[in-house]
Amino acid sequence: MLGTTYRVKRVDIVSDRRTAILNQKDAMELSLREQDRVKVSSDGEWVIAIVETTSTLVEPGEIGLLERCREALCVEENSEVRLMPAERPTSVEDIKKKLQGKELSKDEIVAIIDDIVKRKLSDIELSAYVTSVYINGMNMRETADLTRAMVDTGDTISFDTGPIYDFHSVGGAPGNKITLLVVPIVAAGGLLVPKTSSRAISSACGTADILEVLCPVTLKAHQIRSITERIGGVIAWGGGVNIAPADDLIIRAEYPLSIDPHPQLLASVMAKKKAVGAERLLMDIPMGPETKVPDEKIARGYAKDFISLGDMLDMHVECAITYGGQPIGRAIGPAAEAREALVALEGKPSPNSLLDKALGMAAILFSMDGHRDPLNYAKELLSSGKALAKFKEIIEAQGGDPDVTSETVKMGKYSAQVRATKDGYVSSVSNHAIVKMVRTAGAPKDKGAALVLEVKEGDAVDPGDVLFTLYADSERKLEKAVELSRKIKHLSVEGMILERIPAIHEVGGNR
Amino acid sequence: MLGTTYRVKRVDIVSDRRTAILNQKDAMELSLREQDRVKVSSDGEWVIAIVETTSTLVEPGEIGLLERCREALCVEENSEVRLMPAERPTSVEDIKKKLQGKELSKDEIVAIIDDIVKRKLSDIELSAYVTSVYINGMNMRETADLTRAMVDTGDTISFDTGPIYDFHSVGGAPGNKITLLVVPIVAAGGLLVPKTSSRAISSACGTADILEVLCPVTLKAHQIRSITERIGGVIAWGGGVNIAPADDLIIRAEYPLSIDPHPQLLASVMAKKKAVGAERLLMDIPMGPETKVPDEKIARGYAKDFISLGDMLDMHVECAITYGGQPIGRAIGPAAEAREALVALEGKPSPNSLLDKALGMAAILFSMDGHRDPLNYAKELLSSGKALAKFKEIIEAQGGDPDVTSETVKMGKYSAQVRATKDGYVSSVSNHAIVKMVRTAGAPKDKGAALVLEVKEGDAVDPGDVLFTLYADSERKLEKAVELSRKIKHLSVEGMILERIPAIHEVGGNR
Repeated sequence: MLGTTYRVKRVDIVSDRRTAILNQKDAMELSLREQDRVKVSSDGEWVIAIVETTSTLVEPGEIGLLERCREALCVEENSEVRLMPAERPTSVEDIKKKLQGKELSKDEIVAIIDDIVKRKLSDIELSAYVTSVYINGMNMRETADLTRAMVDTGDTISFDTGPIYDFHSVGGAPGNKITLLVVPIVAAGGLLVPKTSSRAISSACGTADILEVLCPVTLKAHQIRSITERIGGVIAWGGGVNIAPADDLIIRAEYPLSIDPHPQLLASVMAKKKAVGAERLLMDIPMGPETKVPDEKIARGYAKDFISLGDMLDMHVECAITYGGQPIGRAIGPAAEAREALVALEGKPSPNSLLDKALGMAAILFSMDGHRDPLNYAKELLSSGKALAKFKEIIEAQGGDPDVTSETVKMGKYSAQVRATKDGYVSSVSNHAIVKMVRTAGAPKDKGAALVLEVKEGDAVDPGDVLFTLYADSERKLEKAVELSRKIKHLSVEGMILERIPAIHEVGGNR
Repeated sequence: MLGTTYRVKRVDIVSDRRTAILNQKDAMELSLREQDRVKVSSDGEWVIAIVETTSTLVEPGEIGLLERCREALCVEENSEVRLMPAERPTSVEDIKKKLQGKELSKDEIVAIIDDIVKRKLSDIELSAYVTSVYINGMNMRETADLTRAMVDTGDTISFDTGPIYDFHSVGGAPGNKITLLVVPIVAAGGLLVPKTSSRAISSACGTADILEVLCPVTLKAHQIRSITERIGGVIAWGGGVNIAPADDLIIRAEYPLSIDPHPQLLASVMAKKKAVGAERLLMDIPMGPETKVPDEKIARGYAKDFISLGDMLDMHVECAITYGGQPIGRAIGPAAEAREALVALEGKPSPNSLLDKALGMAAILFSMDGHRDPLNYAKELLSSGKALAKFKEIIEAQGGDPDVTSETVKMGKYSAQVRATKDGYVSSVSNHAIVKMVRTAGAPKDKGAALVLEVKEGDAVDPGDVLFTLYADSERKLEKAVELSRKIKHLSVEGMILERIPAIHEVGGNR
């Protein structure tokens, strides 16, 4: 019976933080400071908690336990628990090594990721990890070990058959609903694609948000496996399965600083693909103004890193640098994008940017499978209706209605058109502005919130022409989006002469 | 009446963190993520809080407010408050600049320190600041601006008279009670020294812990000023006054990682001296094994930086590199150190290391005042009893008993002697081991906890000779300290021949 005895006081906060709240006097007695760790135990159960101190919330002799801690210990209010100072996890020393600019061994990286997933690190320690990786970087060996550690600390899917194909977009281009075309096309062509997709973080909608308009996307790992084996393709929400769970926990510290350390980005993407058993991977790297990749040099750097990392992880990776300087297709928003994808699969007139990109990506995947005429093969699968049939199979397998058509998808109940005030040409479409308007209209939560472009870069417009239509599920949100459209620069319309420099008439003397 | 209305739910945690707990559904509705900020307002009052999300603690439509937030808003359970998304403080962008290795302007540094003091930054953001300063550093201009920002965000003391002297030890040597000698000596010699000292963090005891054995050390800023003006010297606990309050808040993020970013260390020390109006400052830099400064090169680097920073802050700084490889004097622990200081002031036999260091430091301060024979002046003030009289004046001014003598100081009630088991010479005394034993005996909280060395480096010992005596206020803690003394290497006793290398007899063939 080691350690000092304390009386439990419940603190009704449900948080993953493992916190033990002590009176300042007790903390001093035990030589404990805030952020120190203690082992709290009761009847064989124990947890390691991080100390916070208070002079009022708990009395000397009491210990405040947050709900998760209390449940883990199976104790109630006024139960007795024993307390002992505990060492910091060794991974804190490993993080310090990275702070000092040193290379981390495989074991050190595994220790850090393991402790992150087990919620053993405080926000201060987690932030130090993210910041030091951002500043000091990681080499390819470290990045590969990081990827494997992220895979190993979560669920994985393995297939008896193969090869398993996958593709992924690094993001940044709005309207990028190509997954809803590429997966059915390549699955119809005989490839196996267990695709996991994300929801929106800062974008208007992720692929998971879009497909959710048509069918459930929260699938279990065994469902992803069995649907892929049976039908060839699946499109699941990655966050609904416990694959690479370290990612979300690390993003927690990246988000407030809006940083995305390069090795961490590489590892996060590749871990999610490795975890679903992908062997051949195509990366879509959208490039252009207001994307994540402003120029070709950076795009090629990403490509090189993904390919090298793939080599180290026994994955064959190819990359496509795509144009992302304006939205893909014309629709942005969950329902609008689902509808636009269905229109394309139904063989009805569709934006070139969407068709070209989706068919091009499908063709690269087919060529990775050794196809001689992959682009025409992809086109044939689309025009014959085989891709549409495959998409409906997928929708049905995931629990949706296979009789859905582009006409049955419900757009937002309220809409408003935004028109040009002068004539000229659309010289640019701002990705950021469009995302902001669609989010203001209610996306990604309100499925009907959308923006549909009537014109795109290079199109001529006259005063009064519709530039785009905004949709929303509520009148109030539509009003806010329209209000925003008046304030921000979304589409630039300019004459062919952008600026006139008048002749200079000198005023005054010869100075 | 802007913003959405929520019903207050009290969360009974007293924490400086400004946290608003929202149901996940509401957070999604408002496009808010964890770590985002919201403006919560009610009847003209408002606070900016950091969002945490929950699926159980509060229902949709409710907002959980920690006590400090609730009090600031003057609202009760079930009151209505309004909520609006709020921008991140601009200082987060400034921190990001330092992450990217850029130089920060004065305004950017001021914004960061201001937001730290106002508790506007989350642990993640604070840790990113500390980590990025640790890795990317700051130049002298930035460090000077950081120092000024730390001064300006707290209370300051200014004197009508002058010059104001001060001194400071960067720490690391146990038993360093010289402040209790230096302040009375130089104050008796006519200098003005408004000394602020710290309590122990990881050491056995700070100067404030020691002097507290003899008198109160928690003084108000106006008391520090008036006692200095009246008597010449004061020794107050720095943490009891609101000077450079950013320091403690920044230490909160440094402590879990045991890092002490160099520019931050320089600024923290200098800010506390600048804030009390110091114009001439002597820095004590203890050097040696198991101190903060292992070698002369590093010691000289510190000295150079303190002097340069002083120039930029209009402070005349001199530095003394001192030997800190074993304790100063023989006593370690609050009461024992107070007693040893009194013994020296009373003119009784005292350890050379203590007398030499204290008189040497006092002499440097006198020479900074232009004294021709400063060392003899210091010695005369000590031997004449003038320093003791001044010390008693200080004790009385701070509210203690001026009739105290070295014999009235109470040591720990329980004691145990630790003896040598072989003969030889003391080749080293481990600072770390000594601190650990004294803390285990109860220091700094238990004033009587102590270790008193009977021998020091270079002394000859026979088996059975007492190496040191441990004291404690409780029998249990004494036992634990004695137990520890058996396990750790504290004093090394070795013969003059340290190792014998026997002749090599080759066994076996010619491999």
